[in-house]
Amino acid sequence: MIVAELSMITMGTGTSASRYVRAVHQVLKESGLKFVPSPMCTVVEAGSMAEIFKAVEKADDVLAGMGVGRIITSIKIDHRLDKEISIETKMGAIKE
Amino acid sequence: MIVAELSMITMGTGTSASRYVRAVHQVLKESGLKFVPSPMCTVVEAGSMAEIFKAVEKADDVLAGMGVGRIITSIKIDHRLDKEISIETKMGAIKE
Amino acid sequence: MIVAELSMITMGTGTSASRYVRAVHQVLKESGLKFVPSPMCTVVEAGSMAEIFKAVEKADDVLAGMGVGRIITSIKIDHRLDKEISIETKMGAIKE
Amino acid sequence: MIVAELSMITMGTGTSASRYVRAVHQVLKESGLKFVPSPMCTVVEAGSMAEIFKAVEKADDVLAGMGVGRIITSIKIDHRLDKEISIETKMGAIKE
Repeated sequence: MIVAELSMITMGTGTSASRYVRAVHQVLKESGLKFVPSPMCTVVEAGSMAEIFKAVEKADDVLAGMGVGRIITSIKIDHRLDKEISIETKMGAIKE
Repeated sequence: MIVAELSMITMGTGTSASRYVRAVHQVLKESGLKFVPSPMCTVVEAGSMAEIFKAVEKADDVLAGMGVGRIITSIKIDHRLDKEISIETKMGAIKE
Repeated sequence: MIVAELSMITMGTGTSASRYVRAVHQVLKESGLKFVPSPMCTVVEAGSMAEIFKAVEKADDVLAGMGVGRIITSIKIDHRLDKEISIETKMGAIKE
Repeated sequence: MIVAELSMITMGTGTSASRYVRAVHQVLKESGLKFVPSPMCTVVEAGSMAEIFKAVEKADDVLAGMGVGRIITSIKIDHRLDKEISIETKMGAIKE
């Protein structure tokens, strides 16, 4: 598994972004990927980078379709090759 | 309130980082700041940037004291001036 | 155009990363995309997100082939829909 | 030395940000810290994290004074403890 965090900041749309965050979450729901909203980003789990990138491109299209003039997308990917990881194992590893 | 996400990647310490993440969480606990671990970062809430930066400097010292040879620290800060925010309000705003 | 910044941190490979940064630059060279190395990341220009993602997936494969055990990839994309941007226009816009 | 990259995204101020980027660069100039603008961020060099954080707090104040309603600040810090680094050495290390 690959675990990633995604944030898409919309510029030119005022200071509130929740409407656009919910639209991105709708894209992730339709993609079938497991995701967990967090206060500063959305954590996504996928079998490959390609699956994550496909969802991000779709989300970008949706935001563009909502009339957003500038989209700053940040993606951070944890790709572990020496052992299997998931949202669960990463949270379990840092428990006291 | 200011809400931020923090991640501190240790290089030269193998592929596992959980020992170091727990050490950073211990610093945050001692700082009295509210924080929420998440799979890709730790979300922190504070009254000012200065409070967050003070905790980050302390965490950097602790990791250095653990013998880490290179520390890549990423901080992302949401500073809203037009209304009060917190970890709760940001999570509430994106609920369906 | 889309302008992005890319950084790929290798874990489990000691504190030096330049060998791996050069390998990523070789992938970008072969992709034909315009890129500009900078001290903390590499700036890439492309016609679409898909072109950038394709190069990132290839770079990830190359690093895995070099025996890297964990790869933390950060991508930040500036997608402007209200006007054409490039590495040049973005640098020109901030000149005094 | 510590090398960092800084980006401050202003929300609620339209799609253009160059006016605000130039204001941040003015703060960095007055701080005396060495900095290099790049298309996606500004690279800063300092003797300590504290010096960087002080400049970021000042830049945040200046943007707030310009009436910005929401500021998303991203800071990424490379703190190397096993050898001295600078903007020059980091660029030199990745030359072919």
